[in-house]
This record gives sequence, structure tokens and C-alpha cells, in this order.
Amino acid sequence: MTLKKQVLEQIWPPDEERDKAEEKFHEIKEYIKEAHGVKAELMGSLAKGTFISGDKDLDIFVFFPEDISEDELEEKGLHIGKDVFEHFGGDYRVEYAEHPYTKGYLDGFEVEIVPAYSINSPEEMKSSVDRTPLHKKWVNGKLSEEEKKEVVLLKQFLKGTGLYGSTLKQEGFSGYLCELLIAHYKGFRELLKDAVNWDEEEVLDPGGHHQGGLPEKLEDQFRNENLVVIDPVDPERNVASVLSKYKYSKFIYQAFEYLEDPAKEFFFPEDPNIDIEKIEDEMEARGEMLVVEFSRPEVVEDILYPQLRKLMRRVKNLLNKHEFELFDSGFWVDENHIRLVFDFQNFDLPKKIKHMGPQVFHNRENLKDFRDKYQNVWVEGSRLTTLVEREYRNAENFLKEFFTGDLREKGVPQNLAETAEDRKIRSPELEGEKWLSFLTQFLHLDGQ
Amino acid sequence: MTLKKQVLEQIWPPDEERDKAEEKFHEIKEYIKEAHGVKAELMGSLAKGTFISGDKDLDIFVFFPEDISEDELEEKGLHIGKDVFEHFGGDYRVEYAEHPYTKGYLDGFEVEIVPAYSINSPEEMKSSVDRTPLHKKWVNGKLSEEEKKEVVLLKQFLKGTGLYGSTLKQEGFSGYLCELLIAHYKGFRELLKDAVNWDEEEVLDPGGHHQGGLPEKLEDQFRNENLVVIDPVDPERNVASVLSKYKYSKFIYQAFEYLEDPAKEFFFPEDPNIDIEKIEDEMEARGEMLVVEFSRPEVVEDILYPQLRKLMRRVKNLLNKHEFELFDSGFWVDENHIRLVFDFQNFDLPKKIKHMGPQVFHNRENLKDFRDKYQNVWVEGSRLTTLVEREYRNAENFLKEFFTGDLREKGVPQNLAETAEDRKIRSPELEGEKWLSFLTQFLHLDGQ
Repeated sequence: MTLKKQVLEQIWPPDEERDKAEEKFHEIKEYIKEAHGVKAELMGSLAKGTFISGDKDLDIFVFFPEDISEDELEEKGLHIGKDVFEHFGGDYRVEYAEHPYTKGYLDGFEVEIVPAYSINSPEEMKSSVDRTPLHKKWVNGKLSEEEKKEVVLLKQFLKGTGLYGSTLKQEGFSGYLCELLIAHYKGFRELLKDAVNWDEEEVLDPGGHHQGGLPEKLEDQFRNENLVVIDPVDPERNVASVLSKYKYSKFIYQAFEYLEDPAKEFFFPEDPNIDIEKIEDEMEARGEMLVVEFSRPEVVEDILYPQLRKLMRRVKNLLNKHEFELFDSGFWVDENHIRLVFDFQNFDLPKKIKHMGPQVFHNRENLKDFRDKYQNVWVEGSRLTTLVEREYRNAENFLKEFFTGDLREKGVPQNLAETAEDRKIRSPELEGEKWLSFLTQFLHLDGQ
Repeated sequence: MTLKKQVLEQIWPPDEERDKAEEKFHEIKEYIKEAHGVKAELMGSLAKGTFISGDKDLDIFVFFPEDISEDELEEKGLHIGKDVFEHFGGDYRVEYAEHPYTKGYLDGFEVEIVPAYSINSPEEMKSSVDRTPLHKKWVNGKLSEEEKKEVVLLKQFLKGTGLYGSTLKQEGFSGYLCELLIAHYKGFRELLKDAVNWDEEEVLDPGGHHQGGLPEKLEDQFRNENLVVIDPVDPERNVASVLSKYKYSKFIYQAFEYLEDPAKEFFFPEDPNIDIEKIEDEMEARGEMLVVEFSRPEVVEDILYPQLRKLMRRVKNLLNKHEFELFDSGFWVDENHIRLVFDFQNFDLPKKIKHMGPQVFHNRENLKDFRDKYQNVWVEGSRLTTLVEREYRNAENFLKEFFTGDLREKGVPQNLAETAEDRKIRSPELEGEKWLSFLTQFLHLDGQ
């Protein structure tokens, strides 16, 4: 049996799984129509036939005419959602995207009731959810059953290699992006074969909107994005805009590795083997590692993760400025805590630091300023030079001082600034399974 | 009394000093004419009236017609020189420039007897000494008595600031260069005032040969030189070609400092104050310092110093490659020893080092090579990355290994390679006045 068949056997949903989900949807749809006189429709990978066996997501849209206000849409949507969960007897909560919606559990399914306007083209769009029905229509009109199997294969590959998911936490590939990639390349293997030849910037246009290349306005708009995949239902939108440079690059490398040696582990990776002795040895071989731990602020992941990345950039820039070099850095988040991890290449520095001043050429004013500012000045090469006392001789002292006082003023993003006051700074403890698993990956002891 | 007058009072030679030197020259000249029938002429700063009081150099040229061979010129020149010293009863030795010549002592004067062809223009030149009479003629025809005082002032300023002398050891300003600078600017202060506005490349043409700017051929030829001063008697020659970028830059800075606050110390610097405690404190504040000591090879300074600079560049490049950073480095030479000095900013490094590989984009062959070469590979940003064991974790080990084995093969210049085998590597001892004086300057504890 081919590897593809083996994998699909595990993840391609059997007919009874589909039937069961559709039955549940029908029940809900009929109730909504009877009780509220509103039309409901199934969205998401289930509706497109591109879901992985075991997925239990019922994304149900309820449609309203374009002439009602957004306030009314929200209100009616929430009312219907709550009534559904109460009628069928399931737990639920209100979640917030562009509009609030209800999300809960019914008979083992994770059900979302999302209000949307009934539209026929993106020009009529009022909110990004309005695009969803158009995506569904396009995918179902384009992909064959065989191609949908390729989508499922791709999704599983991306899950296995840590590249799936397009939240701001993950910055990876969305389900719709997978569908478009297969629509473009016709197959999983064909996609990978082309990906190893991808350049730093790659533009795909599966809907064939920009036959002569991107218009200048879009070139500009997508300037900083590595992968541009034009949305077939909205020619000015890049479906891959959330994909980070790192995940784009890692995808190319994983494609290369897979083609070199295809194996089941790409789809179903084994848990990394935690070996405390190896972790200790590796930490020892690198130098010093420090952890800054504080409470997790109560914000959603889409806010938390961008703030964490911004904070890491800020601290790394300052460490760099003060000549502390890093092997690596990262962060770890659990229910209650945040840990920032810094793995130092150099940790202690001499008392003094060389400070290069202006070039001597044609530069009288700057020579004067430099010489007036510093006591002991000489020429090195063609620059004025002095030695000054270092502000920080020790990386731990730097971190202690940085995470003290008015953190907002130091450029720490708001929500983190509020909780980082209680920071503890210490060498990493070698305890806790999730933490040890993180360290194993952070130190690349898992072979990735 | 102005500073200028004060300085000139100390260094402008009184008439009796001139008379005494000229008398001595006349005696020798008359003897050469009588005994050998050859015309002798005085050259050097004495002949140009630009010597500093106390200078005792009699540079005597003996002239031969153009039709004798170079071998004959050498032979006759040496014969006359030896005879002069024997006749007047002085010690002498043979020195080697382009041609050998005799040099010795007579009545407290350092006398050179240099054979040269009698020529009228540089086109007839056979050796660089043939240019000397033309220089003398140009300077004496151009500079007034007042301007010659300015030359002497400039020379003393350059001596006091460590910038005088154009051997390959010194890489500074020659006497003739001083004369040309004053011919161009008319005065010492005028020169300094313009020098603070000098750019990275400066062209002066005191003979007015290239009125429309340098021809392309010369632009090319002087591309890597900061200061170009066209020789009035040889329009394709840069009189400042030996001046290093450092000494050029230091001159500009010293000009700036002098104009800000003119003081006698620029001309007559005090000996640096040696303070062992300060030396120790400064060394402590910088990190680690190491000295590599070995025997001085028996070669002239014009060979030794370029070789030392080349060796220092080689070692510094390798230290840099292995991530050892330096505050500074230098060398010290006495009669019997050479010491290379390395002042390290970081001395010990972690066991492992990060090694960045190829970018993942469109790069299958390189990905394969990198992944095959290293065991544990991952993506960072958009590059493959790994950690490898460092070759050298400690700077002392690096130096020990570098100065062991076949040094020629490692790029150590020949004469140094022969003696560096007996190298000792250690922390600097704080003993010996000359050495402590060097350390004081090296660590910039002398305020320079």
C-alpha cells in the first residue's frame, strides 16, 4: 500500500462519519427555520468535503437580508444561537470576531452559529464572514473528490510539521489556503515538488484574475509578504497574508525533506523524546540560559501572541545593543504563565566597552562634540575612539532592570506590561512535562 | 612672547651651529676634490636650511658622469667614502639602500657619503637618490627664510605628536613632505587650519603640474592613498605615498586639537607618567591581555615592520573568524625581542557555535549538501541552521596552536616564522621601563 493510501486510510472520513454530521446539521437547520424563519447553511471543511476524520466542527451560518442593520444582525444572530443551544441542551459561550457569535457543544460536535448577510459577490461584503459562502461555492465547484483527498493529505502534512493554522498565534496555513494550493497544483506531491523551487517571493493566482502579472497597486500592497495566493472570489486579497516568513521557509524545507525521504512521520510525528540529561548537556554546551516568568494576562491569543513577539523583538534589540549575543530566544505559554526564554552566547562582559566616534575627515564640529563629551580620546584607523564603562556587564542584571519600573515606557505592550511586574528571573527549572517538551524543541533536540 | 617664537627659540639653529656644520662639510668636500677629483655637494635639511637645532646629519653626495656604469658608480662611491672616514679618522659602516653607501661619525656629525649621477631632470634619473639634488634646488628656490622657519616648526610639531619620519617603521611625514606642505600653504598655522577640513582623499600639487586635476592614470595609481602631494620635480610621484591612513588621520586630529588649544606640549611632549596601578586597573577593566614573545630576527626595520604588520593582520583575521574580539592589538620591539600584544574583549567562548547555512529558497542542491553534512538541522528565519562544536573555546589555546608547527604555511612572514618558534605566551609582566611606557601608550593612559 502506498504511503498516500496508508495516510488517507487514517484520515479520510468514512461515509457514516459524514452522514452523522450532516444529520446533526439538518436537525439544527430545520429547527432554526421553524422557530425563527431564517435560512441556515453549513460552512467550513465539512461543507466542502475537506475535513479530516475526527473533526467535529459544525460551522453554521444563518443568513439575513442586506437591508437589516449590523446591530440588528448581531442581536438576531445571538438570539438564534442561544436559543439553539438551549433547545438542544448544550453548553455555549459568546465569542467575538468582527461580530459576536455563539459557540457551544451538541452531541460531541463543536457548533458555531454565525450570522451573515446573504450576498452574491464580494462587492456587497460587509464583514469578512460574508466571504465564507463564496469560498465554499468556489471550492465545491472546482475540486473533484480526488483533489479533496489531496487537500486532506496536505492539511495532515501541515499539522504533522507544525505549519497548519492561520491564527495570529500560529501564523501558518489556513484550510482555505490548502484548498487553493491543491486547486492550483492539482495534487499534494505536485505542490511539494514546485515548493522546493519557490523563491523568496511567490505569487499564485488559482482563480486566474491577474493573467498579465499583479497590478502595481497589489505589488505594493503585498511587498512584505513571501507567499501571495490571490483569492479567487476577491482578486485584491492575499489568502496567505498571515503566513510568517519562518513558516513559509519551513514549509519549503519540509517539502524538500519529504521528497528526499517520504515517511509517515511527516503526517503523524512521534512525541519528542524527553531526555533531561540531553537537555542539561545541551544547555551546558551553549552557555547560559535565563527564563523570565510572569502571569499570563487575560487576553485572547490573537492579542497575546503579537504582543509577545513585539516584546521579544524589543528585548532582543536591547540585548544586542548591549553586546549580549543570543543562540536563540523564544516564549512559552500555559494557562496561567508566560515564560520568555533567552539562551545566551555571551553572558558576562568586561567592565569597559569601546566606543567609536566620528571620522576625523572634514568634521570639526563632531570632533569637538566627541572630545568634549569623553575624557580620553584617540584616533583608531580614521575614527575618534574612546573606552567607556559598560551600562550592563551581566545579562541577568540587564533583564532584571528592564523588567522593573514603568514597563509601558520601555516599549512593553500594554497587556504584558500589566502582568510582567511580578516577573521572576532564573535559570530554567527542569520540571513539568510540557515545559520539558518545549525545551526539547527549543534546543532542537527533537531533530527539527 | 608668542608660542611660535618660544618654540623657534629652542629649535631654530643659531648661526654658529650652521657655520660649524658648513665648515666641516667644506673640509670633507675639499679633500674629496683633491684626493679623488670628484665634486661633492651637501644635501639634506642642512643644505636646505630646514634642519632642527641639534641635528648633526651631513648628507654628502659625490657626483659621477652619466656614462659610467652602475657597478662602477657603486665601487667608486664606496672607495671614496671609506677613504674619507679613514683620512679624517672616524668609525663607519656600509649601509644598503638602492646602492650601498658609507655612513659614519666625524667630529660628532653623522656623515653619509652617497654616490649619485649628475642629472638635470627626472627623465635622466637612474636611482631615487638622483632626485635629491633636484629637491634641494626646488626648495631653496621656493622657500623664503621665514617659510623655512615654518618648516622647522612643522617638523617639531610632527616629532612631538609622533608623526615625523617616513621609513616603513614610521609611515609618517618626511622632511621633504614638510617643505612641500609649507610651500603650498605658506605657513604652519595655515596648513593646520586647512587640514581640519581635509577629506578622506586630498590632493595637493605645490608645483602646479596638474592644473585641471589629476590625469586618470594617476587617479588610478593613487587610488588607495589618502594624501597625494605631487612632487614638483617629478609630476607622477606622490611624496606622501608612505603615509599610513592612521597617521594621516591622527595628523588631522592633532591639527584640530592644536587649533582648539595651542600649547608647547604639542612640540615638546612630556614623557608619559608610568603608573603601574593604573595599568593594572585598566587591564582589569578590559578583560584579558596576552603577550606572544619571541626573538627579533636579524633584518632591517624596513623589512621587519611590514612583516610584523602583516602577521598582526593575519592573526587578527583568524581571531575574528573564531569569534574572539579585541579591544586592541599591537607589537613592541626592542634590541632582542618582539612582543605581540592582544587585548581581548572576550576570551572564553561556549562549547558550541551557531552555523548558518543556505537560504531555503530555490536551493535544493545546497539544502541537500548542508543536511548531509550536519546531523541536526533546522530553519531559522529563512536559513538552514545548525550548532557545531567550536574549534577554539579559549583565545590562549588558539594562539598556542597558531604559533606551533610550520609557521610559513600559516601565512607568517618568512623572517618572523624563523624566530617565532621559540614563542612564549603569557600575561604581560609589569616590569621594564620601556615596556611599561609602551603599555601606558597602548592602553591610552597617556591621554593620546
